[in-house]
Amino acid sequence: MVKRTSFERDDCPIARSLDAIGDWWSMLIIREALFGSRRFGEFQKKLGLAKNILTVRLRALVDQGILTTAPASDGSAYQEYLLTSKGRGVFPVLVALRQWSEEFDERPEEITTILIDKENGMPVRKLDNPPSPPTASPRGG
Amino acid sequence: MVKRTSFERDDCPIARSLDAIGDWWSMLIIREALFGSRRFGEFQKKLGLAKNILTVRLRALVDQGILTTAPASDGSAYQEYLLTSKGRGVFPVLVALRQWSEEFDERPEEITTILIDKENGMPVRKLDNPPSPPTASPRGG
Repeated sequence: MVKRTSFERDDCPIARSLDAIGDWWSMLIIREALFGSRRFGEFQKKLGLAKNILTVRLRALVDQGILTTAPASDGSAYQEYLLTSKGRGVFPVLVALRQWSEEFDERPEEITTILIDKENGMPVRKLDNPPSPPTASPRGG
Repeated sequence: MVKRTSFERDDCPIARSLDAIGDWWSMLIIREALFGSRRFGEFQKKLGLAKNILTVRLRALVDQGILTTAPASDGSAYQEYLLTSKGRGVFPVLVALRQWSEEFDERPEEITTILIDKENGMPVRKLDNPPSPPTASPRGG
């Protein structure tokens, strides 16, 4: 595997977040976990990725404190991967990605799902769009 | 470069967005463009990435309709890279990534910037957290 640049020690929080979750598979594993997948085989089936890649990504997500492992809830010998609060905290990022696609996709007819709020059965409403263009200032400056 | 899985034809809008902007460099190039960078040399200096990688990423972002090229605004021979509305639309994703870091980072003291709303000089407020856990339904189902 090509060693990539690490942004772990970058002072920009965007770069730091990308270091933890900024690859396709990590984001899609978190998506599947949010939708209820817990087991290696479930992730593998849903995402169709190679087992060795899934193994590496799951381990990295556990190391990052995004997933945690637990014995299977049905008492079988399987291990389950559960989202931590840090992992569930990625949900707004996924919603923002989804809404960006919905707004700008060139083939929106190929998008076949919508996101429903379980509480009221309504589509999740658009995240408030922060004002733009932004500006970054030194903290306390 | 290793050929990666493409999610361009995936029916999930999250996967589709990751196909367009789901790598570190693309996100950071968009971040720099939002903060005002326009020229190859500016992106290269700010991000410190190899010129060949920057060339490939800029071309991909133009192909995706996220950046567009224009003659330099000062009349020089340089080319400038400007965000399209699709590119500016990535801003909520970056804000969500930043806020996730701010909430969950294990070394928050290393984060040295805050995001200021130019309109009122106040820190950008937290994106509304959509309800969780989510559920995806077939469109119209």
